[in-house]
Amino acid sequence: MQAIQVGLLGIGTVGSGTFNVLRRNQEEIKRRAGRGIEIVMVADLDTQRARQIVGPDVQVVADAREVIANPDIEIVVELIGGYGVARTLVLEAIAAGKHVVTANKALLAVHGTEIFEAAQKKGVMVAFEAAVAGGIPIIKALREGLTANRIQWLAGIINGTTNFILSEMRDKGLDFDVALKEAQRLGYAEADPTFDIEGIDAAHKATLMSAIAFGIPVQFDRAYVEGITQLAAADIQYAEQLGYRIKLLGMSKRREGEGVELRVHPTLIPARRLIANVEGAMNAVLVQGDAVGATLHYGKGAGSEPTASAVIADLVDVTRLATSDPQHRVPHLAFQPGALRHVQVLPIEQVITSYYLRLRVKDETGVLAQVTRILADAGISINAVLQRGTGSAAQNAHETDLIILTHNALEGSMNAALARLQQLPAVLAPIVRIRKEELA
Amino acid sequence: MQAIQVGLLGIGTVGSGTFNVLRRNQEEIKRRAGRGIEIVMVADLDTQRARQIVGPDVQVVADAREVIANPDIEIVVELIGGYGVARTLVLEAIAAGKHVVTANKALLAVHGTEIFEAAQKKGVMVAFEAAVAGGIPIIKALREGLTANRIQWLAGIINGTTNFILSEMRDKGLDFDVALKEAQRLGYAEADPTFDIEGIDAAHKATLMSAIAFGIPVQFDRAYVEGITQLAAADIQYAEQLGYRIKLLGMSKRREGEGVELRVHPTLIPARRLIANVEGAMNAVLVQGDAVGATLHYGKGAGSEPTASAVIADLVDVTRLATSDPQHRVPHLAFQPGALRHVQVLPIEQVITSYYLRLRVKDETGVLAQVTRILADAGISINAVLQRGTGSAAQNAHETDLIILTHNALEGSMNAALARLQQLPAVLAPIVRIRKEELA
Repeated sequence: MQAIQVGLLGIGTVGSGTFNVLRRNQEEIKRRAGRGIEIVMVADLDTQRARQIVGPDVQVVADAREVIANPDIEIVVELIGGYGVARTLVLEAIAAGKHVVTANKALLAVHGTEIFEAAQKKGVMVAFEAAVAGGIPIIKALREGLTANRIQWLAGIINGTTNFILSEMRDKGLDFDVALKEAQRLGYAEADPTFDIEGIDAAHKATLMSAIAFGIPVQFDRAYVEGITQLAAADIQYAEQLGYRIKLLGMSKRREGEGVELRVHPTLIPARRLIANVEGAMNAVLVQGDAVGATLHYGKGAGSEPTASAVIADLVDVTRLATSDPQHRVPHLAFQPGALRHVQVLPIEQVITSYYLRLRVKDETGVLAQVTRILADAGISINAVLQRGTGSAAQNAHETDLIILTHNALEGSMNAALARLQQLPAVLAPIVRIRKEELA
Repeated sequence: MQAIQVGLLGIGTVGSGTFNVLRRNQEEIKRRAGRGIEIVMVADLDTQRARQIVGPDVQVVADAREVIANPDIEIVVELIGGYGVARTLVLEAIAAGKHVVTANKALLAVHGTEIFEAAQKKGVMVAFEAAVAGGIPIIKALREGLTANRIQWLAGIINGTTNFILSEMRDKGLDFDVALKEAQRLGYAEADPTFDIEGIDAAHKATLMSAIAFGIPVQFDRAYVEGITQLAAADIQYAEQLGYRIKLLGMSKRREGEGVELRVHPTLIPARRLIANVEGAMNAVLVQGDAVGATLHYGKGAGSEPTASAVIADLVDVTRLATSDPQHRVPHLAFQPGALRHVQVLPIEQVITSYYLRLRVKDETGVLAQVTRILADAGISINAVLQRGTGSAAQNAHETDLIILTHNALEGSMNAALARLQQLPAVLAPIVRIRKEELA
């Protein structure tokens, strides 16, 4: 059987990894797939660089539409990134009857509904294992491996840049700005790190996983997104003393009969959990299913060849299924298109979680009583209290840090309580509030 | 579309879990699969118990052959276990044109080649996600998710009983016999625990993963198998002091141009590795691929519903592919049947690994020199030495434990060196040798 012909749109880091791995392991991949998979055409604005990567046997063009127009090409791999031209090209590829493999989480998290509908109508596949957690086959696990389960929640460390920064902050006691510079110097953070450090990249990925896990449309615009730029080294240390690590967690949770929580924010998690020990740029996703219990999926979440591993897994899947009846394929979002439920993403005020609070207060009798009273009035119960002086004792002899861990509470109630607490004369600085998840 | 009809052979722990989860999540599973999946007939010798589990709407029979003979049943789920009657029934089901889903690692590790060939000839599928690591979708990850990779090695904690015992030994300083009794009391070990504690169960699973990872036939009879019954609490403590944990690891490694290592034995692994922190009855498999690097897959390795999760994932896969062209399905061992390579499993003497040695020696000058000379003569280089007196100092004032960590060496060379070391007059007891893997 002739090799299936593939066209590549964009040959940067992931594209060159895909080309190289596919060539290096072509024999092994063919032994698995039963059919060769060949990249025959590459579109990239930098044709000279593209030519250097692919050598003389592959056609290189500057215009992506030449790839889409090529009738021999059955699968188009989109590795351009972003929402703009990538969206247009993916829709054009679908319209031309091509299957699409993409690593573009931003595109699918924002325009997924439109793209999946177009693909469904045309009877082609859109595969996106590489869009979440690099080489970890987490999309396949959610779509197929755990398909028996009613997924209850999932929580992931799905952004390597922020996890690297948080690891550095904890290990070396660094402040955020210093750790960010270190990450940039080592290539773990981009010159403009906004998407990573503000949690947007993690939210794109959490949005996709949430849709697959719960059978709902992608709803990135409803996600609550909070990055790590406001995290202080002091809170990481206090968390440590209380037996917790702070991670940027992407979470989605089913709330029976109410909706779905979808949120990205710094989160205290118990240090003894395996996922709390995922360090540096590594990724991990924890999935809680009603039958299987908890499973953890760990590996490199980015990089040329780890991401290529996921792109090629999709190419093999699509190759196997290309000749099959569309109704027997695994649907894009794991649920049959007609079976997606329009469950709402709950606003952050309706989220239920537990909290870490740090209050800089006057060190005088009665303050703790005032604070706990306000929390009790709001129906928030306290799990643990830690009182510590920080910094130079001489300088701040009359100030202290009051750390409070709460039990589960409604975010709206917490907001109201925080507004009241902030008004107390004994509270000397803006209150720090970090969400906490026990993950069990 | 009418629900696909399934027959169950054996309704014990996993069978009842499968029945219950399938019924409980039937709507969600149908939304995913696009077609209902229905258990319509159950064969079990204890028909009364079976009837209690499945209720009045499912046909219950004592004779498994009635299930196989039922023309409406497209998938037979074999949950009887063992090599005997299960083998006959699986082969008969295949001959009758039924797809087979099984959790029977023993059967496939020993008779897999015969069974997969029969299925191939008949054009039916044999799916066995539940045979390895319970609910963790590791078979799917190896067959599909990591398909781009040349797998270099895999290492798994794939027997919950022994991992529970080892966790207890380490946590509480218990001896093996005491920890085993505790495990039996809590239901983590069977009355006859031989298959688990002697490493046979882990070897069945390692054999299956090895075949899928490397595209070789199942070769259980060539696996090296060593259990945990000889492990002393002292070695677990010494390992801890050196920064290692002892786990029963199932390993398989590609040795380019030479063959494949396939072995199960107690293994020192660095405590800082995530997999070293897999405690209690949990399972985890670490896979090293050339493109993706290391991925870890963690979860419950046994139990009614976790295993049912895997059985049902297979049912959904088979349901989706039942109408497809056999040549486009993922083959049983992930590689196309004609593309399996007859690579040999290397005998244990040709395995390359590093070692932990404990020698009970006379506490006198010159002993360390004698020991290191013999190791050097065998070409074995030393990584670390630890010398500790144990027990009551008064009683054993003239004895000491000499702990040696070596670099990588050929097992055959180590055997020869150990034979010489054992002859030294200064060596007072049988030498303890435990293999060590850095897993990086």
